[in-house]
Amino acid sequence: MDNMNVKKRGCLYGVGVGPGDPELLTLKALRILNGCSVIAHPGKTHDAGVALDCVRPVVQEFHKKTILSCEVPMTKEAAVLDAAYEANASLICERLDAGEDVAFLNLGDPTIYGSYMTIHKMVEDRGYEAYIVPGVPSFCAAAAALEDALCLRGEELHVIPASYDVASALELSGTKVFMKSGKKYQELRTQLQNDARQVDVVTYASMDKQQCFRGASNMPEVAEYLTLIIVYER
Amino acid sequence: MDNMNVKKRGCLYGVGVGPGDPELLTLKALRILNGCSVIAHPGKTHDAGVALDCVRPVVQEFHKKTILSCEVPMTKEAAVLDAAYEANASLICERLDAGEDVAFLNLGDPTIYGSYMTIHKMVEDRGYEAYIVPGVPSFCAAAAALEDALCLRGEELHVIPASYDVASALELSGTKVFMKSGKKYQELRTQLQNDARQVDVVTYASMDKQQCFRGASNMPEVAEYLTLIIVYER
Repeated sequence: MDNMNVKKRGCLYGVGVGPGDPELLTLKALRILNGCSVIAHPGKTHDAGVALDCVRPVVQEFHKKTILSCEVPMTKEAAVLDAAYEANASLICERLDAGEDVAFLNLGDPTIYGSYMTIHKMVEDRGYEAYIVPGVPSFCAAAAALEDALCLRGEELHVIPASYDVASALELSGTKVFMKSGKKYQELRTQLQNDARQVDVVTYASMDKQQCFRGASNMPEVAEYLTLIIVYER
Repeated sequence: MDNMNVKKRGCLYGVGVGPGDPELLTLKALRILNGCSVIAHPGKTHDAGVALDCVRPVVQEFHKKTILSCEVPMTKEAAVLDAAYEANASLICERLDAGEDVAFLNLGDPTIYGSYMTIHKMVEDRGYEAYIVPGVPSFCAAAAALEDALCLRGEELHVIPASYDVASALELSGTKVFMKSGKKYQELRTQLQNDARQVDVVTYASMDKQQCFRGASNMPEVAEYLTLIIVYER
């Protein structure tokens, strides 16, 4: 019978795995990961990557999963990026066509600067089923480590990405969280060291190598990968 | 021997339980809740409350836990609020003195408008051990339900609480998330309906009764409890 050969298409899940501590995965993320035979991640190789390290210790029979490396090149060239995303979408769709469910790992939450979102749209546009599983963002883990509120009562919270104008970002009222601040870090550090505002820096929030630096004068000289700067109005 | 009577003091945990779906609890939140004999929550009674409903289905032997009701009155009067917080802190410290571990439930993440943070400081100031467990904020769950990014690449994300100036909040670049918008909801709705911006509203994100409303013309007439309004720049 023909029906015997019709495989049900698999489903794609964009899984927020939280800030890095495997214990900060949600129950839902873990259930989805346990149920998917294929795990896609934004790393270069099939066996290394921050998001992969975050799920490896908790996922059942992790060694039996197929790992898809879906690297996205570090460029702002739209054509190069689009081609890379389309190639990754194709890799994933091959698996979905084979009836396999795919979990795409996204550090933190997928809807906050998650490169997964582009893949999500592409795969949905090709007619496949796709869902998003929210995760704990890194700034929540950083604030928990600092034991300080990001915002209280009437305070606003602003999340500022890499390509910001330091001076105008610092004028915003309420709490400012600077993410991915690599290139602007020195300018921001200089500005904050000549300033009376409360500043905290957290590197690798929730991971074993997490470090908290309190006060502008204690800001590290160089911004490591996964550095968060929190500037309070208080 | 005197040592036999020296009880080890308990520890306080401010636990982010996520937006409402019990499956969006983290593995860490669940471990801590399973290990605490006392669960404190901001509801009026010992058996009802949104945060309590969110953990009841997943915590082991929930019926054996002692539930502490730590209500905070709906007022802006600082003296009344402070007195209520101090009374709640005292309730909790009694349990810690008895050697019991206490988990204080906080919907979403404790560091984002969490009333827990005030209790945390008070209990630490009294000399007790206290920790914060981060959780998934409601706006991440709302964006996951909408399948839309809160922020991509260079976009800023602004979280705006109840007491905002609608016009100036709408001038911020990037994505605006309006939380707890009860009193300002009508003004915001009118403004957005005369506006070309993309707007989505999510009520009760991640809960069974979650609803998504897309477009300014479909904004509900009245803002229910737990309504989130997302205004995009796109």
